[in-house]
Amino acid sequence: MSDQPQKESHGPLTGMRVLELGHFVAAPFGARLLADLGAEVIKVEAPGGDPVRQWGRQVEGAGAPWTSMHQRNKRSIVLNLKDPRAVDIVLKLVSTCDAVIENFRPGQLAKMGLGREAMEKARPGIVIARISGYGQDGLYRDRAAFGVIGEAIGGLRYLTNHPPAITDLPPSRVGISIGDSIAGLYAAFGIVAGLWARDRRQGGDGRGRDVDVALTESVLSMMEGMLPEYGVFGSVREPQGARIATASPSSAYPTRDGKWILIAGNSNPIFARLAGLMGKPELATDPRFMGNAARVANVEALDALIGDWSAQHDAAALDTLLAEADVPSTIAYTAAEIAADPQFRARGMVQEVEDPAFGKVLHAGVVPRVTDDPGTIRWAGPAAGAHTDDILSSCGFEPDTIAGLRSEGVVA
Amino acid sequence: MSDQPQKESHGPLTGMRVLELGHFVAAPFGARLLADLGAEVIKVEAPGGDPVRQWGRQVEGAGAPWTSMHQRNKRSIVLNLKDPRAVDIVLKLVSTCDAVIENFRPGQLAKMGLGREAMEKARPGIVIARISGYGQDGLYRDRAAFGVIGEAIGGLRYLTNHPPAITDLPPSRVGISIGDSIAGLYAAFGIVAGLWARDRRQGGDGRGRDVDVALTESVLSMMEGMLPEYGVFGSVREPQGARIATASPSSAYPTRDGKWILIAGNSNPIFARLAGLMGKPELATDPRFMGNAARVANVEALDALIGDWSAQHDAAALDTLLAEADVPSTIAYTAAEIAADPQFRARGMVQEVEDPAFGKVLHAGVVPRVTDDPGTIRWAGPAAGAHTDDILSSCGFEPDTIAGLRSEGVVA
Repeated sequence: MSDQPQKESHGPLTGMRVLELGHFVAAPFGARLLADLGAEVIKVEAPGGDPVRQWGRQVEGAGAPWTSMHQRNKRSIVLNLKDPRAVDIVLKLVSTCDAVIENFRPGQLAKMGLGREAMEKARPGIVIARISGYGQDGLYRDRAAFGVIGEAIGGLRYLTNHPPAITDLPPSRVGISIGDSIAGLYAAFGIVAGLWARDRRQGGDGRGRDVDVALTESVLSMMEGMLPEYGVFGSVREPQGARIATASPSSAYPTRDGKWILIAGNSNPIFARLAGLMGKPELATDPRFMGNAARVANVEALDALIGDWSAQHDAAALDTLLAEADVPSTIAYTAAEIAADPQFRARGMVQEVEDPAFGKVLHAGVVPRVTDDPGTIRWAGPAAGAHTDDILSSCGFEPDTIAGLRSEGVVA
Repeated sequence: MSDQPQKESHGPLTGMRVLELGHFVAAPFGARLLADLGAEVIKVEAPGGDPVRQWGRQVEGAGAPWTSMHQRNKRSIVLNLKDPRAVDIVLKLVSTCDAVIENFRPGQLAKMGLGREAMEKARPGIVIARISGYGQDGLYRDRAAFGVIGEAIGGLRYLTNHPPAITDLPPSRVGISIGDSIAGLYAAFGIVAGLWARDRRQGGDGRGRDVDVALTESVLSMMEGMLPEYGVFGSVREPQGARIATASPSSAYPTRDGKWILIAGNSNPIFARLAGLMGKPELATDPRFMGNAARVANVEALDALIGDWSAQHDAAALDTLLAEADVPSTIAYTAAEIAADPQFRARGMVQEVEDPAFGKVLHAGVVPRVTDDPGTIRWAGPAAGAHTDDILSSCGFEPDTIAGLRSEGVVA
């Protein structure tokens, strides 16, 4: 894979240097967000590489294309952290960095000689983001971190379901490790917040900070009014399926070609236009459906009518009809529709990236988009250890020493 | 409600000043994340207050308790932005701020005289985060931003479903406006990144930046390998219901008391322990279930066996059994279980907060948790306009002038 920048580095985080001691999703995703905005990220991988490289569908002999996006804009060094010489190399790297991001089990890095004290000694004022399942302290801190479990404890899983009166199927996963990714985003936010506190010209305190991010807590922080409403009323928020509890019609409806179309027609004028489009203008003055409150009360009947109508149309034609009538709607996009979307393409949010291992690979773009100083996709995710020699040389290791370390399995 | 800090302000963003021109979820949530870490946030609300204050269940005469958490740690001023005098007040406020966060429709603030140029003139180097449905440019920029539509276009909604062979129910919503919240988090991250680029002692460039955050793109950025796999193999990722496509058993299973329990038993040793617990140790050596690949191939049969077993136990007892056998599991937490969880309580992630309007209100805590310099819940969300006089006075307005502006409906 490419191991040299294809474009000049820029973005607001240009000049920031970050060490990633990460694996799987959360820490590597957080590190990539920093790299996307211009930071120089050094990813430390165990021999054999980050196990996430085996996730998803494989290209024989080259691994999984997901890697191309997940590890992009990083440099990679393979180190066997069980060897004390590798620990010294990590501390040398720390001495050149602004921040570290890690998702080992709580306390594990300290056991290896890579705790706050050792890192602070190597680089006074280092900011360290630590991602774990349940946080760095407390009675659950040693429990294994699984994304699906974090999502369930944070309250997201319970709500991702149809009401029990509708089905006895279990609550659905959202199809991705969203708890890990949200935690990674919080870690990136926390690192930059810590660096602003440390580095700013007026008022910067030069201090290091630990940023403790738990998967469970990252998910919980997204749950809006769920806790306040429980605390004040004792009411447990219940799943609503495809709908919104307080607005109707707003749901996903079937189409003739087997897709789903989202329609948000819950204001009175929009509902009147929707009813007209359905060829049933009388619905707008039907007492069952006059006003949002009535529509919510009679949502089963209303959604059945809309579903019967939507199922007579193909999704694309229906979406056009609805847009022409100014009724907010969209097809539930699959990867294919995302890849073809002109807005995503125009804004660089779907890009073809050259990858030496896989050829052209579709990547999602850089978020957020900083106007006039955007981050860029500088290069595809490197192979594990692609930059081992470069990185060690930059730390002052001679070629002979590097060869020795490699032959003894300390680096690869 | 409380309009004075209950605790001394601290957290890494202490000293940052942010103007929120936000409503509903995305911008207010991003602003709250900054406020939680110590920033001083001034929320500008339209007469009548942010419409989100009417969301959710109400306490008569006092509005919705959600407000207490959603708007906490902010100060609130009510301004009628349609009046040019209010526009001047906003620019006076901008002149005292480091950053602005807004989620008006693209271009709308500029039409009011509050574009980049006017703000940059008021405060050279201002960083502005703009949240919208589809971004600040491109052919979709003027479309209305609805969270559910952003989630559908970003690809999340399609995957949040059971496979068509299992049910013809539509894909579920996740029960919250997750697209808005993720966009808000990206905006907070982008603001701090812009301020680090601007303010840092070594290399800071003093420049302002616009941070353009789209709901659709924020969701897309979470979708992992979906795009790379489509690009390389042409394969569209399909919904998997409660399961993970590549690991078994890993799903949500029913319990006797009507709850769901998540069990992740997909490694061989864990699966053997689970089989033992089920009273069917022979499953571990059954050819259908030996090894993860076989279990994935026979997942329907396996999940049916596990579900039959789990349904004979109450959730709490089953969770204890599984924990004792070291099988990763959890109940799918509702608000009630979250509120009672000892780890959340110990880490300050579930807190009772004094609110003058609602009494004690349960809030989710401050994420991320910055060790030794944590953000705090300083006060509950204020009533709309609670700080109008204070804020105007601090901008140099005399009491008579403020009274005049109030009587003419410019402020409230």
